[in-house]
Amino acid sequence: MSILVVGSVALDSVETPFGKRERALGGSATFFSFSASFFDRVNLVGVVGEDFPPEYVELLRSRGIDTRGLATLPGETFHWVGSYRYDMGQAVTHSTCLNVFERFQPEIPAEYRESGHLFLANIDPELQMDVLRRIERPRLVACDTMNFWIEGKRDALIELLGSVDVIILNDAEARQLTGQPNLVRAAKAIMEWGPEEVVIKKGEHGALLFGADSIFVAPAYPLEHIIDPTGAGDTFAGGFVGHLARAGKRDWKTMCRAAIYGSVMASFCVEDFSLDRMKTLTEEEISFRYREFIRLSRID
Amino acid sequence: MSILVVGSVALDSVETPFGKRERALGGSATFFSFSASFFDRVNLVGVVGEDFPPEYVELLRSRGIDTRGLATLPGETFHWVGSYRYDMGQAVTHSTCLNVFERFQPEIPAEYRESGHLFLANIDPELQMDVLRRIERPRLVACDTMNFWIEGKRDALIELLGSVDVIILNDAEARQLTGQPNLVRAAKAIMEWGPEEVVIKKGEHGALLFGADSIFVAPAYPLEHIIDPTGAGDTFAGGFVGHLARAGKRDWKTMCRAAIYGSVMASFCVEDFSLDRMKTLTEEEISFRYREFIRLSRID
Repeated sequence: MSILVVGSVALDSVETPFGKRERALGGSATFFSFSASFFDRVNLVGVVGEDFPPEYVELLRSRGIDTRGLATLPGETFHWVGSYRYDMGQAVTHSTCLNVFERFQPEIPAEYRESGHLFLANIDPELQMDVLRRIERPRLVACDTMNFWIEGKRDALIELLGSVDVIILNDAEARQLTGQPNLVRAAKAIMEWGPEEVVIKKGEHGALLFGADSIFVAPAYPLEHIIDPTGAGDTFAGGFVGHLARAGKRDWKTMCRAAIYGSVMASFCVEDFSLDRMKTLTEEEISFRYREFIRLSRID
Repeated sequence: MSILVVGSVALDSVETPFGKRERALGGSATFFSFSASFFDRVNLVGVVGEDFPPEYVELLRSRGIDTRGLATLPGETFHWVGSYRYDMGQAVTHSTCLNVFERFQPEIPAEYRESGHLFLANIDPELQMDVLRRIERPRLVACDTMNFWIEGKRDALIELLGSVDVIILNDAEARQLTGQPNLVRAAKAIMEWGPEEVVIKKGEHGALLFGADSIFVAPAYPLEHIIDPTGAGDTFAGGFVGHLARAGKRDWKTMCRAAIYGSVMASFCVEDFSLDRMKTLTEEEISFRYREFIRLSRID
């Protein structure tokens, strides 16, 4: 089995109170892939421009990520420029140049078509639907979205949800999508559109997993040093879907563990810029922090 | 053993998207006492005006709360007028009339002086210190504070912390007090001033308990119906200190359980206005929700 991810591959110029990076490797599909690669094989579909540094492709390949679906188009790579203040809660976007990403038409290599798990990262919901139509129905389909699509393509997004098993989104998006400030009600409203499970990410406050009649609270790891939160949400999704793919099942207990693995992976991501922490991550470190997470909220 | 609480007793006029109450029973010492009364005997010290409805005193007594320390002064009772928007995150204060509370000089009845546990609710840190000086050192001293004192009486507050075992405050207060946006660092900074444990309340995101080298994450109960969040923080403190008093010990495991009981009590408080939900609460309901809380974040 393997995991197919369709999303953005970008260059991020980020400034936080702890430093600055120019044109570092970023993008939703990138962070997701890197994180998921610790759990299962990953097939990446995305697009970059001619300026995309070959060493970034090498970095992805070094984790065994299949990049045959990463197209190169004439022009420049998607470039995001943003910064964070001391509270690290919310990115301030200075500029978003979509560049070649504006013309993104996901092409799924034949070799990818039997991927058992699909993650539709944050792209136009019409493209997400299009991907779904062009491949054999995977065992599990998960998706993300963002405020831009909730505002501009709400109908397409809600249609998509009818074909999705799990949606992973943040608290502000859940509230915006449903008009429900209460997250329990927001999750219920979303489940009525299709998904059997809803994961609401709350940044430094962890994540909530909602099923038909169960709720699980995954804490966030209380970190002393948060260097750059960019990519934490997609890294969470990579750990979550990654664990489900590795486990090969999706009963409630496996889902809860997947939410913890999502939090574990996100907790590493924010410890340095771009993929700098993830690059040196080991499976032992993941297992160790997983056990620490369990301890964090365990009452014997 | 019993619990002594010194703080405000107030009349609250509150409006939320779900309704409105005029001059309902409120105040930090009130919410704390009511909550703690489910765990141990409570001795209340506070002040009200001549307009304070006798049935409110009766309500406190009906839970076995000792009100001999509740003084009545000529004039009107502390009156807070506030409202909440749909997100319920932050109260909007329309007016705060301290009235008799402005002249509050806590008098500790002789019968109260051997209370084993003391909670110094949110009042002037000089008065909090004064109370501590006038009684025999209890087995456990916990306190709360607020932005007003952090701004206006920071030195007195930091002096107080040198004599306090546990401080229970919210995330914004912890950040303001220490100048540290990161809560792990904020808690460490506070512990350097004296407290052995720091509890940081995060409203709908639960609470963090910090010890010398341990952290515990207490989730908040994901509630579908939040009617009025007023008093949730003091109700949390009542459950927390209440459980410690009942258990008669304060090892780490007991502290963690106390944090869960704090969250349990707060989750009931917000289900209705003022003490309306707490009035009908039973010990069975508390035990049941405690077990549900444990399940919420348990991975078997």
